[in-house]
Amino acid sequence: MQQRNMTAAELWADFATPIANADDYVRSLRGRRMMIYFMGERVAEPADHPVIRPSINAMAESYRLAAERPELGSAQPAGANRAVNRFLHVPAAPGDLVAKHEMQRELGRRTGTCFQRCVGLDAISSCHSVTFDIDAANGTDYHKRFLAFLGRAQTANVVIGGAMTDPKGDRSKPPHQQSDPDMFLRVVRRDADGVYISGAKMHQTGAVNSHWLIVMPTMRMTDADRDWSVVGAVRVDAPGLTYVVGRQTNDTRAVDGGALDAGNAQFAGQEAMIVFDNVFVPHEHVFMDGEWQFASSLVERFTTYHRSSYVCKTGLGDVLIGAAASAAEHNGVETASHIRDKLVEMTHLNETIYSSCMAAAHQAKPVASGAWINDEMLSNVAKHNVTRFPFEISRLAQDIAGGLIVTMPSEKDLQNNEIGPLIRKFLHGRDGVEVTDRMRILRLIENMTIGRNAVGYLTESLHGAGSPQAQRIQIARAMKLDEKKARARNLAGITGPARDR
Amino acid sequence: MQQRNMTAAELWADFATPIANADDYVRSLRGRRMMIYFMGERVAEPADHPVIRPSINAMAESYRLAAERPELGSAQPAGANRAVNRFLHVPAAPGDLVAKHEMQRELGRRTGTCFQRCVGLDAISSCHSVTFDIDAANGTDYHKRFLAFLGRAQTANVVIGGAMTDPKGDRSKPPHQQSDPDMFLRVVRRDADGVYISGAKMHQTGAVNSHWLIVMPTMRMTDADRDWSVVGAVRVDAPGLTYVVGRQTNDTRAVDGGALDAGNAQFAGQEAMIVFDNVFVPHEHVFMDGEWQFASSLVERFTTYHRSSYVCKTGLGDVLIGAAASAAEHNGVETASHIRDKLVEMTHLNETIYSSCMAAAHQAKPVASGAWINDEMLSNVAKHNVTRFPFEISRLAQDIAGGLIVTMPSEKDLQNNEIGPLIRKFLHGRDGVEVTDRMRILRLIENMTIGRNAVGYLTESLHGAGSPQAQRIQIARAMKLDEKKARARNLAGITGPARDR
Amino acid sequence: MQQRNMTAAELWADFATPIANADDYVRSLRGRRMMIYFMGERVAEPADHPVIRPSINAMAESYRLAAERPELGSAQPAGANRAVNRFLHVPAAPGDLVAKHEMQRELGRRTGTCFQRCVGLDAISSCHSVTFDIDAANGTDYHKRFLAFLGRAQTANVVIGGAMTDPKGDRSKPPHQQSDPDMFLRVVRRDADGVYISGAKMHQTGAVNSHWLIVMPTMRMTDADRDWSVVGAVRVDAPGLTYVVGRQTNDTRAVDGGALDAGNAQFAGQEAMIVFDNVFVPHEHVFMDGEWQFASSLVERFTTYHRSSYVCKTGLGDVLIGAAASAAEHNGVETASHIRDKLVEMTHLNETIYSSCMAAAHQAKPVASGAWINDEMLSNVAKHNVTRFPFEISRLAQDIAGGLIVTMPSEKDLQNNEIGPLIRKFLHGRDGVEVTDRMRILRLIENMTIGRNAVGYLTESLHGAGSPQAQRIQIARAMKLDEKKARARNLAGITGPARDR
Amino acid sequence: MQQRNMTAAELWADFATPIANADDYVRSLRGRRMMIYFMGERVAEPADHPVIRPSINAMAESYRLAAERPELGSAQPAGANRAVNRFLHVPAAPGDLVAKHEMQRELGRRTGTCFQRCVGLDAISSCHSVTFDIDAANGTDYHKRFLAFLGRAQTANVVIGGAMTDPKGDRSKPPHQQSDPDMFLRVVRRDADGVYISGAKMHQTGAVNSHWLIVMPTMRMTDADRDWSVVGAVRVDAPGLTYVVGRQTNDTRAVDGGALDAGNAQFAGQEAMIVFDNVFVPHEHVFMDGEWQFASSLVERFTTYHRSSYVCKTGLGDVLIGAAASAAEHNGVETASHIRDKLVEMTHLNETIYSSCMAAAHQAKPVASGAWINDEMLSNVAKHNVTRFPFEISRLAQDIAGGLIVTMPSEKDLQNNEIGPLIRKFLHGRDGVEVTDRMRILRLIENMTIGRNAVGYLTESLHGAGSPQAQRIQIARAMKLDEKKARARNLAGITGPARDR
Repeated sequence: MQQRNMTAAELWADFATPIANADDYVRSLRGRRMMIYFMGERVAEPADHPVIRPSINAMAESYRLAAERPELGSAQPAGANRAVNRFLHVPAAPGDLVAKHEMQRELGRRTGTCFQRCVGLDAISSCHSVTFDIDAANGTDYHKRFLAFLGRAQTANVVIGGAMTDPKGDRSKPPHQQSDPDMFLRVVRRDADGVYISGAKMHQTGAVNSHWLIVMPTMRMTDADRDWSVVGAVRVDAPGLTYVVGRQTNDTRAVDGGALDAGNAQFAGQEAMIVFDNVFVPHEHVFMDGEWQFASSLVERFTTYHRSSYVCKTGLGDVLIGAAASAAEHNGVETASHIRDKLVEMTHLNETIYSSCMAAAHQAKPVASGAWINDEMLSNVAKHNVTRFPFEISRLAQDIAGGLIVTMPSEKDLQNNEIGPLIRKFLHGRDGVEVTDRMRILRLIENMTIGRNAVGYLTESLHGAGSPQAQRIQIARAMKLDEKKARARNLAGITGPARDR
Repeated sequence: MQQRNMTAAELWADFATPIANADDYVRSLRGRRMMIYFMGERVAEPADHPVIRPSINAMAESYRLAAERPELGSAQPAGANRAVNRFLHVPAAPGDLVAKHEMQRELGRRTGTCFQRCVGLDAISSCHSVTFDIDAANGTDYHKRFLAFLGRAQTANVVIGGAMTDPKGDRSKPPHQQSDPDMFLRVVRRDADGVYISGAKMHQTGAVNSHWLIVMPTMRMTDADRDWSVVGAVRVDAPGLTYVVGRQTNDTRAVDGGALDAGNAQFAGQEAMIVFDNVFVPHEHVFMDGEWQFASSLVERFTTYHRSSYVCKTGLGDVLIGAAASAAEHNGVETASHIRDKLVEMTHLNETIYSSCMAAAHQAKPVASGAWINDEMLSNVAKHNVTRFPFEISRLAQDIAGGLIVTMPSEKDLQNNEIGPLIRKFLHGRDGVEVTDRMRILRLIENMTIGRNAVGYLTESLHGAGSPQAQRIQIARAMKLDEKKARARNLAGITGPARDR
Repeated sequence: MQQRNMTAAELWADFATPIANADDYVRSLRGRRMMIYFMGERVAEPADHPVIRPSINAMAESYRLAAERPELGSAQPAGANRAVNRFLHVPAAPGDLVAKHEMQRELGRRTGTCFQRCVGLDAISSCHSVTFDIDAANGTDYHKRFLAFLGRAQTANVVIGGAMTDPKGDRSKPPHQQSDPDMFLRVVRRDADGVYISGAKMHQTGAVNSHWLIVMPTMRMTDADRDWSVVGAVRVDAPGLTYVVGRQTNDTRAVDGGALDAGNAQFAGQEAMIVFDNVFVPHEHVFMDGEWQFASSLVERFTTYHRSSYVCKTGLGDVLIGAAASAAEHNGVETASHIRDKLVEMTHLNETIYSSCMAAAHQAKPVASGAWINDEMLSNVAKHNVTRFPFEISRLAQDIAGGLIVTMPSEKDLQNNEIGPLIRKFLHGRDGVEVTDRMRILRLIENMTIGRNAVGYLTESLHGAGSPQAQRIQIARAMKLDEKKARARNLAGITGPARDR
Repeated sequence: MQQRNMTAAELWADFATPIANADDYVRSLRGRRMMIYFMGERVAEPADHPVIRPSINAMAESYRLAAERPELGSAQPAGANRAVNRFLHVPAAPGDLVAKHEMQRELGRRTGTCFQRCVGLDAISSCHSVTFDIDAANGTDYHKRFLAFLGRAQTANVVIGGAMTDPKGDRSKPPHQQSDPDMFLRVVRRDADGVYISGAKMHQTGAVNSHWLIVMPTMRMTDADRDWSVVGAVRVDAPGLTYVVGRQTNDTRAVDGGALDAGNAQFAGQEAMIVFDNVFVPHEHVFMDGEWQFASSLVERFTTYHRSSYVCKTGLGDVLIGAAASAAEHNGVETASHIRDKLVEMTHLNETIYSSCMAAAHQAKPVASGAWINDEMLSNVAKHNVTRFPFEISRLAQDIAGGLIVTMPSEKDLQNNEIGPLIRKFLHGRDGVEVTDRMRILRLIENMTIGRNAVGYLTESLHGAGSPQAQRIQIARAMKLDEKKARARNLAGITGPARDR
C-alpha cells in the first residue's frame, strides 16, 4: 500500500518491473491492502474473492490479447521504440480509433462482459488534448506533466482507470451551491508538494482492478467551482481511498458452488463507489487545478470517445447471438423460419451499432494536441443506439431460448442423487446434445439477459457514458438546424431571407 | 401426505375444514411432507423456506383480496348459496371475465409479481367445457365428475394448480414417437380404481403452493397418442410426485440478510419441474382418458383464457411506473419533460395491454357447457403485446432510475460502521428523501427489471401461455384473409370471382 | 339555399320529407347553391364534381348500412317509436358505443376511406351532456333546445357535421389576445332573433356533404373569451358561409380518365376550410353563448368520444391487409414465411387498435345527462396507437406489394395501342391472374399508403381528434401517479408517508 | 436517334463534344426522338415535358455539383490526366466510396429527391471487376472492352444508366422455364457484328434522362439460362427501345398551374419500364454473353454497392428535418420540448443510416480488378435501416407539420379574388411569417411524405436495391453463426466439439 505524500518518483517505484502478461497482471494486484468492501465486509485480497475475481479475469484479457493479437491489443506510438498496450495509447490517427474499436469488440466476444479498461483509455485520450489546450491558453505545464505520467504508465504497462461521475447531490445545483461540498470531488487543501482531494466517485468501472485512477470533473463548471475543477492521477492504493464494490444481479452465484449456474463463470464486470478522504496528489500528477473553463471540453471529449467505446457491446451481442443459435439447435428448431428471422434481426441490430461506432472512428478529427477524436455526432448516435438495441437483442435471445432460462433447476440439483437423474432425463432435448451443454448455454443466456452480465449488457448500455437524454442533448447541439432549414426553404421555393427571430 | 390409492372421498377428507383466509391458507401448506427440492436439497417445510416463502405470500394475497374486496376476489356461481373465491369460479358471463381481469391487475399491483393462481383457474374453465363436449360426443360422464370435483374444491376453498407443459423431448415428434415415452405425461396403467400416470411437467407455476393439480395435455394429439391424452386432478402431495423448484435471478438475496437488497422482500413468483412416477388418479378425478380428439380444443381454450390472464402484468406495470416516478422524484427530476414523457410512454404501453385484455373479456363468447371464453383473436393479440411492451416499460424504468440500480452497495454495507455513513452521505439525493427510501425504490426497480421478479415480468411475459410464435400462429388462423381480400377486390373495382387456387 | 334570419321552423321546413336512403341522400345535396370552391373555382354542384363525388359516396354508405344492417347502422333511442340512424343517436349505454364502433369499422371496410360522419355524432353526444350541465348550473334551457334540434334531425334523417378546429393564429395566445379576433369563431352580434357568428373552422371533415353543422369552441376558454364561447347549429347553406375544399394527394386522378389509376374510384374523404361571415343562428339553435367555463368539458368530452371513433381505421386496415394478401397471391409468394409473417404483424397491430377502442366503449361511464361516454384513458390510448400503427401497417403493405405501386404505367398507357400490349405482356405475374386485376390491387395499395386515401389513413390518423401530444397530455392527467407511487413504496418496504412536496 | 447496327465508333460519334455543364447536359437530351410514353401519349421532347423535366433537373445537379464542388462531384482516376465526373469513376480506394457517399448525401440535400445516377455508377463499378474475373477464368476480353467503353463515356461526360430488374413472370421459375421467354432480358440473335436483345426492364431509374444503359442480369443464372446471361451497353435511343414512364403520386400537380402545390417544383425522380425489341449491341459493347456462372457475383456486387448508395436518403432526411423545423417555427412551437425531441429523433435515425453507409464505405475491400467495394454486411445493414427509418422520420415530420399538409387549399384558391384573401387571413400563423412561405414548407413536407417525392423517399427506400427480405438473406449469409456459437460455447464452459449435424 502506498504511503502518505509520496513523490511521483516514489509512487512509480513499485512499478519498476513492467507487467509482462495476463498472469503478471493478476500478480500485480495482490498484496495491495486497499480498503475494499463488499457486502459489508472488508475484502482481504480481491484476486482471491470469488465474486471479484471474474472481473479481474476480464481485465486480464486485455493483456492476453496484446500478446496473442498485437495488431489489435497493442499500438506503436509515434517516436516510441516499442509497442505499448493499446489501452495506454492516445489515438493519433483515425486508424488508431478503428483498431481500438475492433479490439473492444474482440474483448467483448472473448469475455461476454465489460472488461473495464475503456474508461481509462478514454480518460488519457481526453487529458492529452485538454492539458495541451490549457497550457496553450495559460502557459501552464500540465501537458508535459501528463506526457511524463503517461510515459511511465506505458513503460510499466499498468492499468489506468478513469473516475468521472460524482454523487451530484441535488442535481439542480452546481458544486459550490451544494449543502454538502463533497457532493463533487474537490481540492480541500494545497501545499508545496501537491493537492489533497476529497469527495467520491460513483459507479467506477474496474476501479479495484486498476493501478492508477485519473479523476476528472463530471460536468461544466463555473468560476465559483474552481476547487471542484480538478484533474489528477492517484494510485488506487493511496491512503484515504475506500472502495465499496456494488452488488450485481446474481453476483453470489459465484459462491453457490459449481460453475454452471453462473452462466459465465469466468468473466464479469465490476463497478465500485470510491470515497476520497484527503487523498494526496503530488503536483507532477495534477493535470488541472482550477481551470474551470476547460471542464466542459474535457467532459465532452471524454464522452465523445467513450460513447463510441460502447462498440464493445457488439462483442457481447456476438456471444448472445451465438448462444441463441446454439439454444435453437439444442431444441432442434434452428431451421424454423421465425428462429432464423430472429437471429437475422439480432445481427442486424448488432451490426447497426457496430457501423455507427466504426463510422465515428473512421471520421475522426484531429485536435490541437495531435490526438484524434471520434466524430461527435456519430459517437452520440452510436451510443444512443446502444441504449436501445441490446434490449431488443436480449428480448429476442430469450424468445429463442425459451422459458427454461428462468425455471431451470440448479447445478446442485443436477448433482443430487435423487433428482439429478430425473433432470437429465427430462431436460433431454434433441438427440446428441448433452443436457449439461444445453443447460450451460441457457445459463449463459440468463447471465447476459437477466443475470450478472446483463448489468453491463443492458443497464450500463443505458447509463454508461451518459444516459439517453445526454446523447439527445448532444445530437440537438450538433444537428445544424439552420443549415437544414435553409435547404428546405430553397427547395420549397422560398426566396426571401430566413425570418429574423 | 396423501397415502396410495385413496378414493376421492378419502382424498378430500383432509380438506373438511374450509380455508377461511390468508393465514389459514399458509397453515394449510404446512406438514405435507412433499418431495420438494431446491438447490440440491430437500425442502423440509416450504412455508419456512426463505426463498420459497415469498411465493406463498403472493399466493396468499388471493385469499386476502377475497376478504378485503369480495367484488373482485370472489364470485357468486349461479345457483350457489354462497360466494366462492374467484379463482375457483368458471366464468359464466363476460362480466365474470372482466372482473377476473380487474382482480388480476389488482393482485399484480399488490404483489409486484406472479401470484400463481391463474393457471388453475384457466384450467378449470377449460375443463368445464371440454368435459361437457366429450360427454356430448361420447356419452361419458366426465363433466359430472368434474363438477363434483370443482364443487368440493369451492367448498374447501383450496388452491387448484394447472399443469400443462411437457418436456417434449424431440420437438419434431409426437408423443408416441419419442424415444423416451415419458417425454409427455401419460397413463402407464389402469385398474378398477383409477389410472396411474408418469412423466413430467415443466415450468409449473405455483405448484408447490397449491393443494391440487389438474394435469392436461400440452398439444394436439393423434389416434396413436391415446395414452398421452389424459386429464385428471391429483393432490400435490400424492405419492410419486417430486418437485424441483427452479432457480430464479437473485433468489438467494432472500437469505443474504436484511430485506433491502431483495427489492421486494415480501413477494415473488415460483416455478417448479414436477416429476410424476406412477401417480394414482381415482376415476372420479379423471376428466379425459384417451379422447385424443379433444386435446387440441382443451389446449386452445386454455391458452385463450390464459393469454388474457396476462393482464396481471399491467398491475406489475403500475408498480414499476410508480417506482420510476418515485425514483425521479428522489433525484429531483420529476418535472423534466423527458422524464414526464417516459412515464407517459410507460403508461400508454401498459394501458394498451390492459385494453387488449379487457376487450378480449368484454367480447367473450359462450361455449356449449355454459362457460364463457375470451375472444380468441383479441386474447392472442393481448398476449402478443405482453411479449413486447413490458421489455420497453422496463427499459424506460431503468432509464429513469439511473445506473445506480446495478452498482449500488448492499444493505450490509449500509450497516457497516466504516462505510455505512459514507454511503448515507454520498447517496444522499434531494433534500428530505431518506437514503434508504431511495435505495429501496431503486432495489425494487432492479427487482422488476433485472432481478427476481423480472423473471415473471419479462421472461414469463414472453413464454407463459405460449411463446410469441404461438400467438402469431393463432392470429394467422383467425385473420380471415379471404374476407379481407374480398373487401379489397371490391374497392379496387375487380368484378370477377376470386381466383381459384 | 337558406335565406337570411330564418327561424328554426323555417330552417327545418326544407327537410319535411325525411331522407329515406342513400340515393335520397345524394339527391338532398343537389341544388343548394352553396359557396364552395375547389382549386380556385366555384363548384356549381358538388354531387357532380368528380373530385368531390367520391366523398359523397362514402357518406352515403352510412345510409346504405342503416338499411342493409340496421343492427349496426341504426339505433332505437329510449322512448322513441322508431329507429334512427346511429349517427344521430346519443349513446345511452356501453352497448351503444360498442355498436357504434362496429359500425365504424364496417364502414371503414366498405369504403376504404373516411366516411365523415363521426365528428357530427361525437358533437351531438358531447352537446347532449354539456348543455345539460350548463342548465343545471345556470338555469338556462340549452338542453331542451338541443333535444328539440336533435329530434328534428332524427326525424328528417339529415347529416349533422361538427366544426371545432379554429385557425388559432398565434398559438401562444387565447382568443381575446389575438391581433385578429377572427382567429377563433365568435359571436359578433346578438339581437332578438339570435346571434351572428364570424371566423373560420379548419380541416372540416365532410362539411360540404352535410346538412347542418354544429360549431363548438376548440379549447379551454377564459372569462375574457365569452364571445368565443359559442355552440350552435347552422345549416351548411346558410348565408355567409364559404367553403374551400382542400387539396388531397392524387385528387385529380379522378379526372384523368378511367377508374384504375385512382385505386379506389368510388370512395374518398373530404376536408374543407369553412369561413363564417356574420352567419345568423336563431336562439333555438344556440346551445352555448358565453358560458366559457364549460368549453373545456365540451372539448374533453368531444375528444374522448372522437378518439375512440378512430376505430374506423381498423376497417381501412382490413382492406389494406386484404389488398396486400391479394398482391402477394398475384405475385405467387403468398406462402412465403416472411410474407405470412408480415400479414400477421399487420393484423396484430390492427387488432390492437381495435381492442383499445372497444375496451374504451365497453368501459364507458355515464354522465349526468344520461349519455354514456368512452373511458377517457383508454380512448386516448386507442387514438395514440392510431397515430403509430397505420404507418407501420402501411409500410408492411408496401413491402409486400413491391415497388410497382409507384412505377406502374397508367390506365391510359394500357389503353394505348402501341404500349398497352407490352404492358399486359410484361406485367403478367402468376398464371391465371388478370394483369388489370393485379394493377387494380396495386393501385388500391398506392391509394391507401401514398395516395388519396392515405390522407385519411395516415395523416389524419396522426392529427384528427388531436395530435399525438394531445393524447399524451391526457394520458399524463389520467395516469394516477400518486396511487402508483404508493404501491411501489409499499412493496419496496417504505413505511413512512410520501414526502410532502 | 441512333440508326440500326452502328459500330461502337459510330455510336460514340454523336458524343464527340464532351458535356461541359448542367445546361449542356439538358441540351444533350433534346432532339433524340426516343419512343417515350407517359399517360398514354408519346412524349415529343422530355426536356419540355412538365412532369418529366423536374427529373431532368435533378439529374443535371450531378453536373452542377461537379463544377461547384469538384472534390465531391468529380474524381481523378489513377493515370488519368484530368478529372471525370464521380458518377463515371470506379472506386479505387475506400476514400472514393467515402467521397461518393458524401456526394450522394449532398445531392439528396440539393434536390430533395432521387437524382437517378447511382444505378449507373454502381453498374460500371460492378462490371469493372466482373469482366476482369470472367476474363481471368475464360481468357475473354470483356474487361478491355469495358475499359474502352468507360473511357469513352468519361471523355464524353455522358450519363450511364444501369438496367437490372426483369419482369420475372412466375417468380418460382428460372428464365428458361418461363412460359414467356421474354420475362427475362435475353439474347435472341447473334451475328458477326454483335448481339440482339429482347425483353424488358422494370422500374428503371432515370432511364429517359440517360445517354447509355448497361443491361445486367437480375439474379443467379443456371447453365440453361445462358441466353439470359447477358451484359451490354446500349444507347438509350437505340432502335427497338420503348419507354413507359411510370405514374407517380401527384405527378400532375406539375401541370395544375403554379409551383406551390407541387411542394418541390424543381426536382423529382423518374422510373420507367423499358421494352427491348431486338435491340442491337455491337460486340465492343458486350461485357458478358453466356457466362452464367458470373451472373450471381455481378448481382451481389451491384447490390453491395447500391445498397450503400441509399445514403442519398440522408440528404432527403436533412431537407425533411429542416422543413419540419421550419414548420414548427411558423407555428410558433419550435421551442416546445416534444417538438425538439422529435427533431432529435429524426436526426438520430437519419444519422444512423448515414453511419451504416459510411462504415460500409470506410471498410471497403478490394477485388481482383483493383476496384474497391463496400463491406457487404454493413452495406446490407445500411439498406435495411433505409427500409425502416425514413418511414418513421416521415411520420414525425407530419406530426410536427400538422394536418394542414393534407387539407390545405390550392395555389389557385390563393389566386382567386374571393377566397384568396380569406385563405391569407386564416392561414396566418405567427407574426412575421408569410402565409405563402408557410404553405410552401407544408407542401414540401407533403411532397416528401405523401406526395411525389415520397415515391423515392419511402417506397423506393423499401424496394430499391432489393426489398427488405433480400437484405435479410444477405445478412443471414454473412452472419457467421458458427464462429458466434463457438464463442458462446466457450464462455458457457462447454469443452467438447460442436455437435456434428
